[in-house]
Amino acid sequence: MKIINNEVDLKKIHIKDKFWSKYISLVKNEMIPYQWQVLNDEANIKIERERNDKNIPAEKSHAIENFKIAAGLKSGHHYGYVFQDSDVYKWLEAVSYSLTNEKDPELEKIADSVIDLIELAQEKDGYLDTYFTIDAPERKFKRLLESHELYCAGHFMEAAVAYYNATGKNKVLSIASKLADCICKCFGPEEGKIHGYDGHEEVEIGLAKLYVVTENKKYLEMSEYFLKQRGKDSDFLYEQLEKDINKEEIIKGMNTSEKKYFQVHKPVLDQDTAEGHAVRLVYMCTALADVAYLTKDAEMLAACKRLWTNITKKRMYVTGGIGSTVSGEAFTFDYDLPNDTMYCETCASVGLAFFAHNMLKSEPSSIYSNVLERSLYNSSISGMALDGKHFFYVNPLEVDPKASKYDPTKSHVKVTRPSWFGCACCPPNLARTLTSIGKYVYTVSNNTVYTHLYMANEAELSLNNSTILLKQETNYPWSGNIKISLKVDQTTNFTMAFRLPDWCHSYTIKLNGENVDYKISDGYAYITKDFKNSDLIEINLEMEIHEISANPHIKDDLGKVALQRGPLVYCLEESDNGDNLHLIKLTKDVKYECEYDPNLLGGIAKITCNAKKLIVSDNWNDDLYIADAKAPKYENKKITFIPYYSWANREIGEMKVWINKDI
Amino acid sequence: MKIINNEVDLKKIHIKDKFWSKYISLVKNEMIPYQWQVLNDEANIKIERERNDKNIPAEKSHAIENFKIAAGLKSGHHYGYVFQDSDVYKWLEAVSYSLTNEKDPELEKIADSVIDLIELAQEKDGYLDTYFTIDAPERKFKRLLESHELYCAGHFMEAAVAYYNATGKNKVLSIASKLADCICKCFGPEEGKIHGYDGHEEVEIGLAKLYVVTENKKYLEMSEYFLKQRGKDSDFLYEQLEKDINKEEIIKGMNTSEKKYFQVHKPVLDQDTAEGHAVRLVYMCTALADVAYLTKDAEMLAACKRLWTNITKKRMYVTGGIGSTVSGEAFTFDYDLPNDTMYCETCASVGLAFFAHNMLKSEPSSIYSNVLERSLYNSSISGMALDGKHFFYVNPLEVDPKASKYDPTKSHVKVTRPSWFGCACCPPNLARTLTSIGKYVYTVSNNTVYTHLYMANEAELSLNNSTILLKQETNYPWSGNIKISLKVDQTTNFTMAFRLPDWCHSYTIKLNGENVDYKISDGYAYITKDFKNSDLIEINLEMEIHEISANPHIKDDLGKVALQRGPLVYCLEESDNGDNLHLIKLTKDVKYECEYDPNLLGGIAKITCNAKKLIVSDNWNDDLYIADAKAPKYENKKITFIPYYSWANREIGEMKVWINKDI
Repeated sequence: MKIINNEVDLKKIHIKDKFWSKYISLVKNEMIPYQWQVLNDEANIKIERERNDKNIPAEKSHAIENFKIAAGLKSGHHYGYVFQDSDVYKWLEAVSYSLTNEKDPELEKIADSVIDLIELAQEKDGYLDTYFTIDAPERKFKRLLESHELYCAGHFMEAAVAYYNATGKNKVLSIASKLADCICKCFGPEEGKIHGYDGHEEVEIGLAKLYVVTENKKYLEMSEYFLKQRGKDSDFLYEQLEKDINKEEIIKGMNTSEKKYFQVHKPVLDQDTAEGHAVRLVYMCTALADVAYLTKDAEMLAACKRLWTNITKKRMYVTGGIGSTVSGEAFTFDYDLPNDTMYCETCASVGLAFFAHNMLKSEPSSIYSNVLERSLYNSSISGMALDGKHFFYVNPLEVDPKASKYDPTKSHVKVTRPSWFGCACCPPNLARTLTSIGKYVYTVSNNTVYTHLYMANEAELSLNNSTILLKQETNYPWSGNIKISLKVDQTTNFTMAFRLPDWCHSYTIKLNGENVDYKISDGYAYITKDFKNSDLIEINLEMEIHEISANPHIKDDLGKVALQRGPLVYCLEESDNGDNLHLIKLTKDVKYECEYDPNLLGGIAKITCNAKKLIVSDNWNDDLYIADAKAPKYENKKITFIPYYSWANREIGEMKVWINKDI
Repeated sequence: MKIINNEVDLKKIHIKDKFWSKYISLVKNEMIPYQWQVLNDEANIKIERERNDKNIPAEKSHAIENFKIAAGLKSGHHYGYVFQDSDVYKWLEAVSYSLTNEKDPELEKIADSVIDLIELAQEKDGYLDTYFTIDAPERKFKRLLESHELYCAGHFMEAAVAYYNATGKNKVLSIASKLADCICKCFGPEEGKIHGYDGHEEVEIGLAKLYVVTENKKYLEMSEYFLKQRGKDSDFLYEQLEKDINKEEIIKGMNTSEKKYFQVHKPVLDQDTAEGHAVRLVYMCTALADVAYLTKDAEMLAACKRLWTNITKKRMYVTGGIGSTVSGEAFTFDYDLPNDTMYCETCASVGLAFFAHNMLKSEPSSIYSNVLERSLYNSSISGMALDGKHFFYVNPLEVDPKASKYDPTKSHVKVTRPSWFGCACCPPNLARTLTSIGKYVYTVSNNTVYTHLYMANEAELSLNNSTILLKQETNYPWSGNIKISLKVDQTTNFTMAFRLPDWCHSYTIKLNGENVDYKISDGYAYITKDFKNSDLIEINLEMEIHEISANPHIKDDLGKVALQRGPLVYCLEESDNGDNLHLIKLTKDVKYECEYDPNLLGGIAKITCNAKKLIVSDNWNDDLYIADAKAPKYENKKITFIPYYSWANREIGEMKVWINKDI
């Protein structure tokens, strides 16, 4: 049976986009070499603890060294987090996409050497995890709550598939298959196997991807098993720890996390609210959506839809960020979206994009692609500084440097991007997403080419019986004009479907300069016709500035608006507007102006307007509280908004997305 | 030398006030017997951990048992917090005030037996602390950062002075003096003594009080030394731990607290902002103000004023609560006063009242007595349920039960008052304050009787050369009418000074029905004349409803008002107003009505008004964010405010002090 895969081969897409090419280059030229130095403990940088916790290993990465020790090339102990291996795998995955985008024999050589090292570190039975191989072989698969063994395995499988796709080299796939076989041998419903799952979802994603390239159905079934077993016996993770005679914890205190943290409070298919650790949840959903697509399992897809609805209708920030609390880096409850205490981890935003992408495979609906876009253009890329060398874990919507400094409950909200973290999950996660951005642009199914994202690119897409070349030209996200030109060998009947973004309230679609018939379904405009060579489709998405209002059940946003233009959410920064941003309010009759400034923050469209700022000294001297205050006075003030993703690239200061507005 | 003490002898004041007598009775009839059961592990109650931390001892109190073991009457180990002894001392202090208010031979007998037990537990050299006597004699005074030895000693001294004042019995004073002598022998500037101080201020208060009754100047000097030494060598507490060969911690992790937590970041007299653990800070200030008064030390008094100003002008809630963050139960920074994540510990409010009271001894200014009143009537008594058996540690200004349940960073905000805590500091602290409320009503100095608080009472006050009997009649805080009648043996020239509360914008003062001359100074109206027997002073403080606005630098209160009538701050509760309190707004032309309801919450003056509630369904279906929303629609809604102190005495629900208001 041929696997139906409507994902587009990354090799066949060449990103020519001014906006995204910059990121792809930054990853290739800055992040990848930099991460390589970090992984080898050669970078002369200060690694920061992402939390104020001395238990966090932050002296060095030691990740490559761990592999060398596991491979028997060096002696010593494992250092770092138990999931340190995944740093190497995520680096390798980013390298793979980067090599797909652009050949680089030097880099490929380094990657090959890493794969050789991984092969050496793999045990005879396929087991692969340096922590357990080096320091705790007797505890393998015995402490899944905290061990991250399957999590690391999943990341390796993702990297392996990416590297194989990039280079066609089989070795990496053979290591991954051996590892997957080892897992299939140890886990499953059969007697004698472990009837369990990992504390951190990820292997389910890797196994499904490995199935697609190897066509080994066992891997898909293993992924499905992990997903369907999860939460069925919701005590499994805890009971496994109880059974281990050795009581030493691998991650201190993790066993006190509640079931929701791990999404094991009920069977996955019964879950209808997004709970617990946000990254875990979206990784689970990403796998669930992929397996639902690959197996055509309607029940799985229904579960995905329920979770998608809960996230995007109740628990997501306007930036596409998720995770309302630092405690457990987790979801909390419906409409609880505080702007200055949240987590909004970069990894979680990226994971939400993965989930959206996999849902689009089954259902081309803009409810997914709109969020995909929102997440990518806002709280994902806000994770990286414009220099490509500094990174946020936490992506707040409101920052007061005093609070970050003097209120320990906000100390996780950093005001500048540190250069590296002890737990280095976010930067490489962003690197692999940025280098594979092309994957998210199109899907192809039922003789239809779906355009989900707008960015300049050239793509070669396979339809039922033909191949088309498609060239997208645009200055997105600064302009909503998109030109798509076709190259076909012969006139071909097929459908082109274009996403009509949720932010766009007015648009035109023309074919060769003329109006064209299209029908709209699920947020896409469908044009079906005999397309001929050199056909030119011009889409003009009117890119007005919109004031976004949050559902009034979100307490923290009541009486406020956020500005959005195109896919970009905007914010005020102290650099442009002075301090006390909370004293600024937009008037009813506010007029916004937008201007592209090539010299500001790497080139951005900034928004300016006249606003009012409360004059504190008018009513107040040094009183803390006064009775029956007269109406406050305001001064006029011109203010400047910048795209959210570009904040914190100048001096330290306040930042605010949701701005008071007169109603 | 006669000690100048302008504090009024509690024995000479008889509270006849409807409002406060209820509390005094509750303490006597409910709290004291109940606490006695708890201290003896005889109460059939669930002791709750005040935090979600398994290290907190909460199985039982064991406090009396600890004394029995230390006394050699039983064998076993110490159980509970290292400062468990202070529970007994604070209970004893409350008992003492209660006995002062009303004889009770049965209770006095129990108290005597406790004192006998304490005497037995005291070591030969005067040392007294059951934890160290039982389980760690070799660590005495070696780990002051965490040991709370001097803290407990201070509480015993306060209790001893109170019990001596109540009963005239010397034994308790002799135990306290022996203990104080032991401390004086171990600490001080002399060679061979410890040049240090306790991690938790309190002994400084106890020593100053002990000085006043014993007239032993050494104790005052010891108190002064502790205060002036504090922060001079700001590493003292940490270095002492380093020197201890035994590295076992007594309070896990406390040594990672920063210097500000303990107020040792700089010398006390150089401190000008309120930092660190709020209770510690106000205890320090309470001692500082008392010692400044007793020694007439201008520099100390100046430091008190700076700290007072910082607290009351920058870091205090409208309820008189302090402590903006749960992390370290601490102050944060100026104008940082979040309403739903704060700590506002009951002990800290009570401590702020102590500080105010001691400042009034030196300076009769209403800047102190206004806050004294605010704290007592709002965030102090909110610590206790109307049944006298349930207690809050944390006194929030905004509560959403969903947040308390599902957001771990708000789990410290309880929605109902638990019956007891593992760390039982707040309930007995409140008990000793309530039973000694009479102390706060008057001070006498320079032939002037200062009336700081208004509550019905009869007092016998000593002036320069005479004694006056003074009877205050009022239905305060529900009414601002106060009648004060005098009994004097002969016509006497003296001054009566009455506080003009900050909340009162219009008032009349009459003598025997006629207008009387008075001059105003520092918020007090001074009447100086030859007073004769049966003179009747009538004060009418107009008790209007005021809308309080917070300084706009307090972000969380911008665009909101709090209602206050008389000394009482009001709030909305879900019981009266339904859920989603944040959707309610007060209109510009709002008219408030006030009505005393004897059947509501033990009898309260409730405030009602017509308000608007946003209709969510008008603009919103299930969308999380919408663009360019039309102006929201509102429904009319009659709402009911109740006094803040009385919240959480009905079913669980939302509560909110700061309410949106149209400007």
